[in-house]
Amino acid sequence: MNFRFVGSGDSAQVPRFGCDCPACARARVLSSHRRGPCCAEVRLDGRRYLLDAGRMDLAESCEAERPAAILLTHYHADHVQGLFHLRWGTGESIPVHGPKDAQGCADLYRNAGILDFRPGLKPFRALELGGLTVTPVPLNHSKPTLGFCLDDGDARLAYLTDTLGLPGETERFLRDWAPDVVVLDATHPSTHPAPSNHNDLSLALQILERLGAPQAYLTHIGHELDAELMAGGLALPAGVEVAHDGLTL
Amino acid sequence: MNFRFVGSGDSAQVPRFGCDCPACARARVLSSHRRGPCCAEVRLDGRRYLLDAGRMDLAESCEAERPAAILLTHYHADHVQGLFHLRWGTGESIPVHGPKDAQGCADLYRNAGILDFRPGLKPFRALELGGLTVTPVPLNHSKPTLGFCLDDGDARLAYLTDTLGLPGETERFLRDWAPDVVVLDATHPSTHPAPSNHNDLSLALQILERLGAPQAYLTHIGHELDAELMAGGLALPAGVEVAHDGLTL
Repeated sequence: MNFRFVGSGDSAQVPRFGCDCPACARARVLSSHRRGPCCAEVRLDGRRYLLDAGRMDLAESCEAERPAAILLTHYHADHVQGLFHLRWGTGESIPVHGPKDAQGCADLYRNAGILDFRPGLKPFRALELGGLTVTPVPLNHSKPTLGFCLDDGDARLAYLTDTLGLPGETERFLRDWAPDVVVLDATHPSTHPAPSNHNDLSLALQILERLGAPQAYLTHIGHELDAELMAGGLALPAGVEVAHDGLTL
Repeated sequence: MNFRFVGSGDSAQVPRFGCDCPACARARVLSSHRRGPCCAEVRLDGRRYLLDAGRMDLAESCEAERPAAILLTHYHADHVQGLFHLRWGTGESIPVHGPKDAQGCADLYRNAGILDFRPGLKPFRALELGGLTVTPVPLNHSKPTLGFCLDDGDARLAYLTDTLGLPGETERFLRDWAPDVVVLDATHPSTHPAPSNHNDLSLALQILERLGAPQAYLTHIGHELDAELMAGGLALPAGVEVAHDGLTL
């Protein structure tokens, strides 16, 4: 499979509106340092699968290449807001798989348009999408949220955002499953006084050490962590990198 | 006052995702024919006021010029979706005035960030914003929705979208108020079998004739009306024009 980070930012994105910190100031000048809403895409056997749908140009991107399915980690706006426009399109419906969440986001369920919302995914019950096996795993967030364990028969990638720590059953599953690559939420710097709903850097690194995957990428990055990275002095362990928008594995 | 149509499209926008009609095909090639989510802005005495917040680049636009206030006609996603990003900014709060609507859209009220949601506007009770007097008037839509009658002491403009027809009390108010300019919802062509929540062209023209304003602009235009306009043969009455994105009065 080909995996691409489309957006690697938190809900405020980078630059954050109105913020003059060094990371936000840099992102305004150098577009390569911007971070859009956290999302990714997987290509396999000529098909394109989207992980989350918060990018603001979602419909335009889907015109260029219609997705075979959309996987939603959860129904917070920064992960689904592109659907508000896409749904009113025409043509074949697009399957949307996400966690069981009675509310969803605003009126998406009620006015689904061309979106075909499938029944909520059951944790640890694998979904087959073409040659891709997707196993949803529960995460710790303020809304029902799933991580996705992607297996194309050749490589295993675990996509784990948004989360604060990991539920015990998810961590046990992942240690057995032995992913080649882990993508993990690291929204805040380690100096964050009280992270909630999202990992800070030190918590993310502890989780990665316990999982022991050979390669890991941090995503859902907030501007404060970017500013710390800019200032230097953050030594990441071998095999751990910070993702950026457009990074392809 | 300086009034600018920022977006003049319906919720599907033009081009509509996946549509190959002549209007959508043209808009893909000629960006001047694209129609974004319906919204506008007013400039007066060096201040900028936004009418609706559905444009996808709202935060970027507000960085270039911070708005003094945002007026929301209603809480459908295509009129508020830009707020999901803007709210997580920093600096002074931005006042947001809209109709009384207990639900709003998704978690906007609960997680308002820098948005200062003011109490719901009362119909026909004027709001003073600097030198601009704004009188909200009820409209006919599937969610509580207001039109805005804008008066800078020099000119009167009524902004009336989204609506199917007009409530009697609103039409009576407008006839007394005698606007110089009326901006009106004309989403569908006259051939639409059963318009709901939005005017079709013939209904819009009937309303404009009754109101008798010297100048009128049609907005919230769907791709089907655009295709009819392209095909020609739609003679609009004198003083009635179809708005386009970027049109400034």
